[in-house]
Amino acid sequence: MTDTKPRHAAQSQFPVVGDVLQIGGIALPMLAERVGHTPFFAYDRALLGARVAALRAQLPAGVALHYSVKANPMPALVQHMAGLVDGLDVASGGELKTALDAGMAAARISFAGPGKGDGELAQGVAAGVCINLESERELAAVARISERLGVAARVALRVNPDFELKSSGMKMGGGAKPFGIDAEEVPRLLREVAAMSLDFQGFHIFSGSQSLRGDAIIEAQTRSVELGIRLAGEAPLTVRQLNIGGGFGIPYFPGEQRLDIAPIGAALEGLLARLAAALPQARLALELGRYLVGEAGIYVARVLDRKVSRGEVFLVVDGGMHHHLAASGNLGQIIRKNYPVAVGNRMTAVEPGTASVTGPLCTPLDVLAERMPLAHAQIGDLIVVFQSGAYGPSASPSGFLGHPAALEVLI
Amino acid sequence: MTDTKPRHAAQSQFPVVGDVLQIGGIALPMLAERVGHTPFFAYDRALLGARVAALRAQLPAGVALHYSVKANPMPALVQHMAGLVDGLDVASGGELKTALDAGMAAARISFAGPGKGDGELAQGVAAGVCINLESERELAAVARISERLGVAARVALRVNPDFELKSSGMKMGGGAKPFGIDAEEVPRLLREVAAMSLDFQGFHIFSGSQSLRGDAIIEAQTRSVELGIRLAGEAPLTVRQLNIGGGFGIPYFPGEQRLDIAPIGAALEGLLARLAAALPQARLALELGRYLVGEAGIYVARVLDRKVSRGEVFLVVDGGMHHHLAASGNLGQIIRKNYPVAVGNRMTAVEPGTASVTGPLCTPLDVLAERMPLAHAQIGDLIVVFQSGAYGPSASPSGFLGHPAALEVLI
Repeated sequence: MTDTKPRHAAQSQFPVVGDVLQIGGIALPMLAERVGHTPFFAYDRALLGARVAALRAQLPAGVALHYSVKANPMPALVQHMAGLVDGLDVASGGELKTALDAGMAAARISFAGPGKGDGELAQGVAAGVCINLESERELAAVARISERLGVAARVALRVNPDFELKSSGMKMGGGAKPFGIDAEEVPRLLREVAAMSLDFQGFHIFSGSQSLRGDAIIEAQTRSVELGIRLAGEAPLTVRQLNIGGGFGIPYFPGEQRLDIAPIGAALEGLLARLAAALPQARLALELGRYLVGEAGIYVARVLDRKVSRGEVFLVVDGGMHHHLAASGNLGQIIRKNYPVAVGNRMTAVEPGTASVTGPLCTPLDVLAERMPLAHAQIGDLIVVFQSGAYGPSASPSGFLGHPAALEVLI
Repeated sequence: MTDTKPRHAAQSQFPVVGDVLQIGGIALPMLAERVGHTPFFAYDRALLGARVAALRAQLPAGVALHYSVKANPMPALVQHMAGLVDGLDVASGGELKTALDAGMAAARISFAGPGKGDGELAQGVAAGVCINLESERELAAVARISERLGVAARVALRVNPDFELKSSGMKMGGGAKPFGIDAEEVPRLLREVAAMSLDFQGFHIFSGSQSLRGDAIIEAQTRSVELGIRLAGEAPLTVRQLNIGGGFGIPYFPGEQRLDIAPIGAALEGLLARLAAALPQARLALELGRYLVGEAGIYVARVLDRKVSRGEVFLVVDGGMHHHLAASGNLGQIIRKNYPVAVGNRMTAVEPGTASVTGPLCTPLDVLAERMPLAHAQIGDLIVVFQSGAYGPSASPSGFLGHPAALEVLI
């Protein structure tokens, strides 16, 4: 009898020695001692570097890689990423500070977000970063700020395309959207920009995120480049940058497979050639967050209690939805599915039957794994949630029910 | 032609003067000036008092009312509630500190939670609060701590009943659960408790929350009291307290109606009589969180931008899911529905058509209202999300995307 249930993608980026998961060459129980308390998130800097290197090896050299800070804004991690990528994308005044603190040159930072306040826009203009304008109001505000500060703000137009990234986890373009300027309105705004003392950079076109279908990504990238070239034809200005967003997903749930980058790289070769012919001064940039950091991180919580209730096993741990909302199934998911989860100090022996991993919060939402095959865990064991390098603590309600916050370490 | 679409329950707890919503007698724009920045949560202390008074008027005098701090742990609010209710229920060491800081007597505080750490249990024993034991491990730990500290810890057993609160938003009892001790295991644990130097208080039976069906609540309360009486028959100990949980819901979504308390109060009269006959020393307690505070609070965000994208209106505001995850539809909801939302400085004129209210975060999840009938809002107007007194900022990912936290004020 073969088990035909869908499985999680293998988490072989983290080696196992004996029975124990290793993070950055450190055995997990030793790492927990070094951190000093559970729960914690650990991010592996060697894996971050390896992911960027593998991506560069499969993408044409002419493609610029940006890191989207919102995926993981831990300062040490952003500083590490700043040394690996060609630019940082930020989504708030707070993230802007993190990016500047990390030492990234302002000219290689861009600032997007559908509701940028006047204060945040002024921060961006004063810092000299590229502001992705998302509305006429923002254009007018940046023009006023530029005049007041006596500088020509670097600006790009964020475009709401007339298409979407198919089969993506989050659609951020196509149809009516609060993000960016509808493509059909862009020519009119370009004429306004041209009449102002602004330093025009180009376009930002972001159609969606968390897609595991290479063909859908290639189609969205192709349409984004075509839209950029078409809009540039309407611009009485030189286009220096075309940011076509990200959309590269990672496998979270059973049955999902890792994205094959090779065909995307091959298609980008063709797109780069078309862009070079049409807009020789335009640099093509990809903006990736989750894809760069998500697989390099784990969340670790300790088993506080092992309970059997009416025949079902519950491993009650000291961490949960307040640290890792996405793994609990409460960040955009319609149906709760399990992230890959294991007992980090018992990696080889899965017991028959299933167990659920639940957190310390007094709510049935606080679930990290529901009826999964797991090793026979004891009190004190370390539960690991993989694929936790992106949208972890910063995307979680850390104050919920008054428990301590999770620590984050970069190993 | 009549509009037969389901509507939100009227939010008449907050008066409107002219066109403007009033909070604690203060016009909303003036309140926003007083707070000093948007977004913010405002809780109305008069409404909190009125809700407790109305409830007491409809419930038998013998029923003790507890406030469940997890619903809203703002210290000023907890302090206010401490003066209104008969007890506080906490769910972590952090909430325990808040309850003690509020001046509530330790004897009137109880501490529940499925994953209490040894440190938290010691905090509870040292403070002298009643610890609702949720497992054999907790019983053993509390016995050890009691011996070490030389005190007889106050304990109750939290029971996982063999039934659930029907049609509740969150089921917390019935079937296999991480919460409490399965009812069928309780007699055995009672014998263990009796053999220890512990100060036994009674039982905590919590079957579910956020129910708007009085008949379901009455049924769950009846079964809880019956279960408590039955378990007490197995206890070689005096039962002094029977906490039968809460479960009283408030109307969030279109078509939902406020709960009628009168029949619940009438049924409780009968249950009190049965309890007095069977367990004359047992006090009956209800543990309510959301029902006491939810309707007394609003969330206020300011319109940063008014955009029309492909025919749809978007009001982009300076607040969103990072402050109010539940209103964005990402806290346990399967299908996103709108909370009651209005333009707080234009309460009387709803324009034809609909508008969506979206936040500043670069994610399509950041939605406070989707295609709702609203007044014609302008930049600078104040958007109000009603029913926001419970599970607001403490249940939200305040660090998400690096925006400032919301303020909270008690008016």
